[in-house]
Formats: sequence, C-alpha cells, structure tokens
Amino acid sequence: MTEELAEILNQTEEAVERRNAASVIALCKGLHPADLASIYEDLNSEAREFLVDTVGAAGFSDVLAEIPDTLVEGALDHFEPKEQREILESIPDDDRVDILQDVSESKRQDFIDLLGEEDRDRTRTLLRYGEETAGGRMTTQIGKVFASMTVKEAIDHLRPNLDLVETMARIFVIDVEHRLIGLIRLRDLAFNPWDTPVRDILTPEKHTVLATADQEEAAKLLARYDMALVPVVDEARHLLGVITPDDAIEILEKESTEDIEKSAGIAGEQSEVTYLNTEVMVHFKRRFGWLLVLAFLAIASGYVMLRFEAVLNEAYLLALFLPMVVAAGGNTGGQASTMVIRAMALGELDPEDTRRVAWKELRLGLLSGSVLGIAIAIFTIFILPLFRPELPAGISFGIFGLAVAVALLAQVASSTVLGALLPIGAKSIKLDPAVIAAPAITTIVDASGMVIYFTVARALLGL
Amino acid sequence: MTEELAEILNQTEEAVERRNAASVIALCKGLHPADLASIYEDLNSEAREFLVDTVGAAGFSDVLAEIPDTLVEGALDHFEPKEQREILESIPDDDRVDILQDVSESKRQDFIDLLGEEDRDRTRTLLRYGEETAGGRMTTQIGKVFASMTVKEAIDHLRPNLDLVETMARIFVIDVEHRLIGLIRLRDLAFNPWDTPVRDILTPEKHTVLATADQEEAAKLLARYDMALVPVVDEARHLLGVITPDDAIEILEKESTEDIEKSAGIAGEQSEVTYLNTEVMVHFKRRFGWLLVLAFLAIASGYVMLRFEAVLNEAYLLALFLPMVVAAGGNTGGQASTMVIRAMALGELDPEDTRRVAWKELRLGLLSGSVLGIAIAIFTIFILPLFRPELPAGISFGIFGLAVAVALLAQVASSTVLGALLPIGAKSIKLDPAVIAAPAITTIVDASGMVIYFTVARALLGL
Repeated sequence: MTEELAEILNQTEEAVERRNAASVIALCKGLHPADLASIYEDLNSEAREFLVDTVGAAGFSDVLAEIPDTLVEGALDHFEPKEQREILESIPDDDRVDILQDVSESKRQDFIDLLGEEDRDRTRTLLRYGEETAGGRMTTQIGKVFASMTVKEAIDHLRPNLDLVETMARIFVIDVEHRLIGLIRLRDLAFNPWDTPVRDILTPEKHTVLATADQEEAAKLLARYDMALVPVVDEARHLLGVITPDDAIEILEKESTEDIEKSAGIAGEQSEVTYLNTEVMVHFKRRFGWLLVLAFLAIASGYVMLRFEAVLNEAYLLALFLPMVVAAGGNTGGQASTMVIRAMALGELDPEDTRRVAWKELRLGLLSGSVLGIAIAIFTIFILPLFRPELPAGISFGIFGLAVAVALLAQVASSTVLGALLPIGAKSIKLDPAVIAAPAITTIVDASGMVIYFTVARALLGL
Repeated sequence: MTEELAEILNQTEEAVERRNAASVIALCKGLHPADLASIYEDLNSEAREFLVDTVGAAGFSDVLAEIPDTLVEGALDHFEPKEQREILESIPDDDRVDILQDVSESKRQDFIDLLGEEDRDRTRTLLRYGEETAGGRMTTQIGKVFASMTVKEAIDHLRPNLDLVETMARIFVIDVEHRLIGLIRLRDLAFNPWDTPVRDILTPEKHTVLATADQEEAAKLLARYDMALVPVVDEARHLLGVITPDDAIEILEKESTEDIEKSAGIAGEQSEVTYLNTEVMVHFKRRFGWLLVLAFLAIASGYVMLRFEAVLNEAYLLALFLPMVVAAGGNTGGQASTMVIRAMALGELDPEDTRRVAWKELRLGLLSGSVLGIAIAIFTIFILPLFRPELPAGISFGIFGLAVAVALLAQVASSTVLGALLPIGAKSIKLDPAVIAAPAITTIVDASGMVIYFTVARALLGL
C-alpha cells in the first residue's frame, strides 16, 4: 500500500469517526471498493452504520464482495429490502452467489425472493454447486457466440449484452446445442472483415473444468497454462461459465495460507477476517486442539526420560546434549516434510515416487547427520574440556564425543527419512498431510531421539 | 493433471526413450508448451537432445520460457546460432529477458549479439532492471494509442502490431510525451462509432508501479484491485510495460513457497526445478545452514538442564513432564509467529499494531495455558497416582500437579506473546521475519521453558 493511499484511508476513517458526511462522500468517491471494504472492516458497528448510510446502496454494492465473509450479513442488514434488491441485482452473479453463501439459510431465502425472475433462477442454479467447486465460483456472464455466425453477426449479438458481460478477454464459441467448441478473441472481431465466419477464426479449447470439480483444479489449470479464462462445463461439455484470473489468485492465496497455517498446527478454514479483527475465542478454537493433543503426546518423551534415569544419573553431562539431539531430529524432519508437502501440493510427486524420495532423503540425512556429528564431536573433544565438566571415571571426552556424534547421526538420518515419508503415508490413507505430518513428526522424533540418545550412550559408554 | 494428459505425457516420454521421431512429433503437436517443458525436465541429457532435435527450433521456442531456470542454458546449447536467433526473436520480450537472466554472463552477450537491432536495444534496456523488479518482469509489447486519436485511428494504429502485442485486455492511452493518461478496453474500440475521440472514452488509471519497484508490489496491486494488467511506469509516469495476471500468479506462488520453506529453516531462493530433480547437494546446501546453527543454540537448553541437576535429582518424576512443558511453548509460539508472519505478508499489520498484537496474544496465551494447565493438573492428580510413581517424601500429587500446571501456564503465555512479537521485532530491524523468527523462537522457548519449569518446581515443591 502506498503512503498516499494509507493517508487517504486514515483521513476517511477519521471523517467517519467525526460523522462528517460531506467529507466522507468526497473521500470515498475516489476509492476502490477494496479500499472502502478495508475501512469498513476497521470500524466499530456504529461507525459502520454511518458509513453505509452515507455512501448509500449504489456506492456500497461493489464493496460487499470485498468484505470478509462473516461481515456480509451484518452489512446487508443496514439496508431496506428495496435497497438490498438494488444491491443484489447490480453485482455480477458470481459475487452475488458468494454473498448469499455467507448469510444464514433463512436470510438467503429472503434475499433470493427479492430478485427478479431471471436473476433468481440463475442464482438458484449456481447455489446448487458447493462453495468450493468450480461451479460455485464461476462467472456466468460471459461472451458467447454461435459458430455459425459471421463476425458482423457476432458483434451485433454481443453489443446489447456488453454491460452485462464481466469479461471479454475471450469470447466462447458454441454449437447449436450450446456445447463449447472453441474461442475467439475480441481482437479477432475488431480486426477481421465483417463477413468472416466465426467458425474460420476460432481456436479449439482443450482445457476445461467440470462444474463439480474442486475450484483449486480450475485455478491450477489457469496457472499452468497461463490461461486468460478457464471454461467451466458440465459432463456433456455445455458451457456454464468461466473462472477468471482474479478468482484463481484468490483461490491460490487462500490455499497457501491454509498450508502455512496447517504446518503450525492451526486448524480449520482460513478466515477472511484479518488477524487483528479475529476474536480471541476464534483464534483459540483454531489453535488449541493440536496444542492439547501434542501436550499429552509429549508425555511419551517424558516417559522415555524416566526409563533412562539410570543412564542420565551415571553421566549427567549427557543432559548437555540431550535437547540438541532431540531438536536436530525435529528440525531436519520438519524440513523434509515441508519440502515433500509443498512438492505434493504443486503436483510434483506421485505415490510411485516414494522410493526415490526415501533414497534421496536417506542420503541427505546421512550427509547432514555426518557433518553435524563431526562438528559436535570436535566441540566435545576440544572445547568442552576447557570448561572442566564432570565425566564418570573411565569415560574420556573422546568416547563421549563419539557417542554424541553417533546418536546425532542416527537421529538426523532417521528423522529426515521419516519426515519425508510421513506426508506420503498420510496422503495414501486419505489424511491431509499438512495437518497430520507436522505434529506426528514432532511427537515421534522427540521420543525416538531420546531412545536413540540414551541407547547409544549406554552401549558406547558402558553405562 | 487429468489422467488423459498424464497418459499422453507418459506415451511421449516413452516415444522419446525409444527414439521414435515420428510418434514424438505426432504426440507433441497437441501438447501445450508447459507440458512439453515438464517432459523435457524429466528426461536425461541424451533424451533431451533427441527431443529438441525432433521438435526443432520453431517447436521448442515457447517451451524455453516454461522450463526451470537452471536448465535454460543447456537447452539453448542444443541449437546452432541461427536457430538460437530464430528462437530468441520469436518469443515475447519479457520471456526473452527471463531466459537471458538465466544464462552465464558471457553466453548472454553472445545471445544479445545475435538479435536484430530493435530487439537488441529493447532487451538491453530491460536487462538493466533487476530480475526481481517490476521492470525486469514486465512485458513491453502492449497496445498503446494516443489520446488525440479517434476510434478509427486507434484501430488503424493497432492493426499492424496485432501479432506483436501480447495482450489487448487493456489498451493504454498516452499523451504526446508518452506519459500514461488512462486506458480503454478493446470492446470500446469494437463497439463505438469510429469518429469517437479516444480521449472521450478513456478511463483514468490510478494504480501503477515503478519499474524499479519489487515485482511483488505489482502482483499484490493486481490481486488487491482485481486488475487485468498493472502498468509499469518510470518516475515521470512514462509507460514502459505491464505486469500480466500470469506473471502475478507466478510471483505470488513463488513467494508463498519461499515463506513456507523459510518457516522450516530452509534457506535461499526457491528453485524452479522440482523436488525430485534437485540434486542432494543442492538440497543439503539449502537446509544445512540452519540445522547447524540450531544444533549449537540447543546446547543452551542442555546447559540449563545441567544447572538444575539438583532439582531433577530430588524429584526425578519431573522428567515426565519436562518435554511437554518445553514443547508446549514451541508449539504455541510457533502458531503465534506463523499467524503474525502471514498477517504481515498479507499487509494486515503495521508496526503501530504491536501493542494490539501483544494484548491479543497475551489473552490467548493465558487462556490456552490455563486450560492446558487444568487438563494436566487433573491428569497428574487423578491418573498419575494409579501408576504409583515415586515422589520425594512430603510432596503430594496435588502440589506436584499444581507445580506442573503453573509452569505450563507461564511457559505457554510467555511463548505465545514472544512468538507473536519476534517477527514484528525482526522486521523492525530489517531482518526477514520468516527466516529469523522460527529458529529464534524454538531456541529461546526451549531454554526458557526449562528455566521456568525447574524454577517453579523448586519454589512450589521446596526442592
């Protein structure tokens, strides 16, 4: 955000707080609906009421699609039914469907009843698709012409619908039964002789998504093939609508945020409300579940520590490197699982690749573990003695360093392989790897790290 | 990827392996350059050579922009200078610049010398912008008309350049000094009377980026305002080029991957090569740095354990809950920092919000810590005694449970606040929060957790 814009937003918020309608109107005139939406979100409920009254239904309709899901119903409630109708009829049908998906069931029916017949039918049809499907996200107001038309006929056919059509980046060519054949670009109409048949200038379109497909599939198709629009069709290839690049960007950003949050053990749908505007209780619900599970699982590591009391008591200096060995496993396992989960999300890995992943990570784990082990052995043998810590009789710093290094190598190598394979395993039994892998790795490698460390120490140091 | 496509890709790879030129040509004809690129990436170097020879310069030119950076130079080396020139001249200039940025300095000069004069000059100019800037990423082949033209003049002006222009989604309107005034849509030309002055139908464009700005700024602008194209200008508002939605998607995806990887302590530029095709040594270099740093930092936690030897010896049952208290801090701190880092990346948080963030996380930490503490206290008082573990004389399970619960509350509350504030602090001293915060939190809360746990135990249990 530029400083200039931040300044205007601040001024507008202040004008709202002072209830100065004239300057609110003047300031809002130049603002993009996305900016007005972020102001709305920042205000308390009385200030919101004032802002909406001042801007009016006509000024607020485009803002509605930009505010967070959870605020939509409250925003619509500011208006009389007549204004609600005005708003709902003036916005593109994909935005209208999004908005209606965000309000309670009973309200939704009321709002649909406000609409004119044509809008009502189309809206009902779209609402049948799930919110996360291509059909639930698509725009139906697109440019369509028949293959049998000439360029002139196509122009005449499109002209009356110009204001209704959201995007003309591609014009779709359909046959008499409304099945998608291909597409033309607006430039083909603008720069070709008027008697050219549309059939002669169309490009066949191979890439489509089903209306019932996950919206992510459409977004990924658009990203992979740099498409201007992704056509959404039914099983018989009837053209139903399109997914636009701004839909795709929104879908991909939301998905990334969810992946990032899942890896930190944060559950549930990413809220569209900003961090600061989310209530403490909502944050609590999304975060606490895994905290509790992980806390009880961590008792397993504690149990391992209890069982090895004798070893620790005999060479208490082992405590100095215990957290390090355990943590190295968590870090290396976490890195491996992060890379594998991301590669799976980008569609780079199939189940057949499991062996190659394991082999790659095993070499990587042995390499990292060896280098790390050598570094720690050097530290233990040459630097640690300077601090004159206590070692049991008969144990030299040399053998002590060797034990720490071997344990570290075993822990790092096993955790790396495990971190890479857990997400693949989780996916193969239909669990979400991003949700399962991170906590599972932490728990397993914490406990296994202690077992490895104490076992190696007991064997090599003769405790 | 659909099964059908995966099947075609497999067949093509097999045809290449069998060195069957005829069927490679037949199969490749229907493939998108992005698909051909993914086949190229999967092959070994001899098979790549064969594929390139078979497809030829004309068939391979669009593929070049789609293959990973590190493979570009090798791919170009398959061709004779004459073919290299053909390839480099046939692709849009933003792709050409990307490709030239991926080859070695000396090769770059050779390739530039191959180009015709006009292409050479434009390419040199673009290469002056950094690879990560809007200028380095922009497309310069755009539709531009002067405000003084009529619709007819604008059409005649654009017609000869049609094939050169990458996108006509928006046509930019400039003044006599080539400064950006506004834009028109192709539909405005197609559906308006020919004598309409362009000046009368243009929409002013407020949102632009400087060519020297970070490319992310352009991508975020496009995403926020659902723009079809983001104009790139110089300080005097001369129109230089545009950022397209597919550029924006690529920029945003790459950035998300980097954020995800950084949070797991994986360093450096995200490679465009897929996970499986990345060499073990490359993975090692990206991951090992933080592992080593974290390993040595973890000795701090070990040192704390050494110092509290006496406490642990007197009530060794404390070991059962030690890993849990420590890990709970890491988990809760990790969640808080993930949410704050993501909120900062999405532009939701300013430094002024620090106090609000701290207050929110403090309440959240106290809430989570209390519920967690109560759960563990119940476990310790009612379930643990069933296993008849040893407690020192004079210490009841009640006071023991209380000590664990209090330590847990203190650890969770402090780690939550710390996890949220560290990224903000890192950013305020110009460090990348995603790189610094995750390792710093782990290290700090591991050590502080041990201090808290043993200190509370010593105080409450009188050890």
